[in-house]
Amino acid sequence: MAGGPTTPALVAAVSNTGGLGTLGAGYMSPDALRSAIGEIRNFTKRPFAVNLFIPSEPRVPDAVVVDMNQFLDRFRVELGLPLTPAPNMTQRFHEQLQVILDERVPVFSFTFGIPDSEVVAELKARDIAVIGTATTVHEALMLEEIGVDAVVAQGSEAGGHRGTFAHPFEQAMIGTMALVPQVADHVRIPVVASGGIMDGRGIAASLMLGASGVQMGTAFLTAEESGAHPRHKEAVLKSSEDETVVTAAFSGKPARGIRNRFVEEMSQYNGEIPEYPVQNALTQDIRQAAAKLNRDDMMSMWAGQGVRLAKSKSARELMLDWIHQVDTLLCGPAGGSQSARR
Amino acid sequence: MAGGPTTPALVAAVSNTGGLGTLGAGYMSPDALRSAIGEIRNFTKRPFAVNLFIPSEPRVPDAVVVDMNQFLDRFRVELGLPLTPAPNMTQRFHEQLQVILDERVPVFSFTFGIPDSEVVAELKARDIAVIGTATTVHEALMLEEIGVDAVVAQGSEAGGHRGTFAHPFEQAMIGTMALVPQVADHVRIPVVASGGIMDGRGIAASLMLGASGVQMGTAFLTAEESGAHPRHKEAVLKSSEDETVVTAAFSGKPARGIRNRFVEEMSQYNGEIPEYPVQNALTQDIRQAAAKLNRDDMMSMWAGQGVRLAKSKSARELMLDWIHQVDTLLCGPAGGSQSARR
Repeated sequence: MAGGPTTPALVAAVSNTGGLGTLGAGYMSPDALRSAIGEIRNFTKRPFAVNLFIPSEPRVPDAVVVDMNQFLDRFRVELGLPLTPAPNMTQRFHEQLQVILDERVPVFSFTFGIPDSEVVAELKARDIAVIGTATTVHEALMLEEIGVDAVVAQGSEAGGHRGTFAHPFEQAMIGTMALVPQVADHVRIPVVASGGIMDGRGIAASLMLGASGVQMGTAFLTAEESGAHPRHKEAVLKSSEDETVVTAAFSGKPARGIRNRFVEEMSQYNGEIPEYPVQNALTQDIRQAAAKLNRDDMMSMWAGQGVRLAKSKSARELMLDWIHQVDTLLCGPAGGSQSARR
Repeated sequence: MAGGPTTPALVAAVSNTGGLGTLGAGYMSPDALRSAIGEIRNFTKRPFAVNLFIPSEPRVPDAVVVDMNQFLDRFRVELGLPLTPAPNMTQRFHEQLQVILDERVPVFSFTFGIPDSEVVAELKARDIAVIGTATTVHEALMLEEIGVDAVVAQGSEAGGHRGTFAHPFEQAMIGTMALVPQVADHVRIPVVASGGIMDGRGIAASLMLGASGVQMGTAFLTAEESGAHPRHKEAVLKSSEDETVVTAAFSGKPARGIRNRFVEEMSQYNGEIPEYPVQNALTQDIRQAAAKLNRDDMMSMWAGQGVRLAKSKSARELMLDWIHQVDTLLCGPAGGSQSARR
């Protein structure tokens, strides 16, 4: 949920309703991050989290970059953009991390990789809880090893980028129903289920599978407070479960989103798609111009496989609905909360 | 679970413990099917089901068949088999169906397609309950339309063949967590969850998602009564969740199984893999010889993504464990079964 969707208002609304609102800050400048944290703190006194991307530095041959950049010109022509611009390759992880440390953000979560255990120790020394993202049991064990406090088990249903870092991504497309109990059996830290969880039914199901909590992205994408592009929200609300696809076309890293023209034309590209973050830098101008022009045929519209369950309500209403559903499912219609609560 | 695993003893053990044991009879001759039904009836007085494949008749050009048959000779050489045999293309659906009708099997379930509504009406006229298999909401609606009594929602985690019949299969790889509530919201008939469900946690989770029941395959594959090849059982028991793959290499229809040499070498085949049932007929001699010689590098070893949860016990012990787990999860450790039961 990096980029637009997780506005400070959305993060705070989730925290104020008893959840852990999370700012997806992977693409934010240190200044923007600091100011967003300030805004969140104006809106809520409760804990919240900031999520960052762990950087990788792939070696992409120049020719691969040049070829792709020229291929992308077909989209730039339509959008009236300058052709073949130089990519802006800023990687800001260490500056972003410094903001997290300075601001003593209550919870730090990360995806795309595994930080040094010293980073984790530094965060924990400042009482910042640390949550990593795994897509297999093996990755969850690696994260436990470096000292994270909890692990998100990201199932194949999940929208947005795959968090896979220790396998080829296709090998780590494990459905949430299968992934969560297998991870829960192998780690001692709490497991947070994610992928395809869209309402109280998914939350209750995740608790049954052995999760201590859930992470929901797509379910908040269409919330009133979400900063997702209006066309993106519309696309989620009208899509069905078979209309999402995992593609590396936008960023160079596989991510699940709604199939559109950009994804389809890129699938015909014969060359090699440069790895993240190179491809992400190459397509940045196109994605930004497409968003400005409301051209949903060229925007990245991340979404998980649960799209038919998305609803347009305030985050607070969504959460209260889900909590009520979970109470009914786990405690019966009478609402007696003695039995069946974990 | 067609082929070896669902022995009459396994089917009966499941039914005798309160489940609906199902004979996977897709590949059985009418005589073998009739005699297996008789055996099941000797072992149990309770309802059971028979599952068949709905046939399709793809038009595969001769050249595609000839090329593949020659490519497969590399495996035949190692197994000491005659080279390039003529494929045995028997399709027996209508004879198999006649056995189901004659024997008044309590429940008929099917996968791979959608029979004519007259077939469903004929079955129901004899009080045979009918269960179809869907991998998307759209397929579930098609099945409801022809009058099935319940629909299996097959998530992407599931082992064995994809039941997809109305989409390209890649489009219909929806995880169980996302698929079940979306199907449940759109059909009025009961939904049976399948895919990645391996124990009481998965059963309880499925009920939370809105399923009325579950279908479990891989979880019974390693049962003592299962007729799966010993090497297949061993492979399931020692695999991890990232070691299965969806491949059309064995049968021409995508199916999830444990990655082995046959799958890998076939993935390098440059030609077209003939559609099911043609490829299935072409590889039959190889699969059978490999099984006889305990060559698990060439056997098809179907399994779902929940493999780490597989256990070697009797079917009755497995089921009693799961029922106990479900009771504890839904009704609390005290076991009071008033609240939270659906």
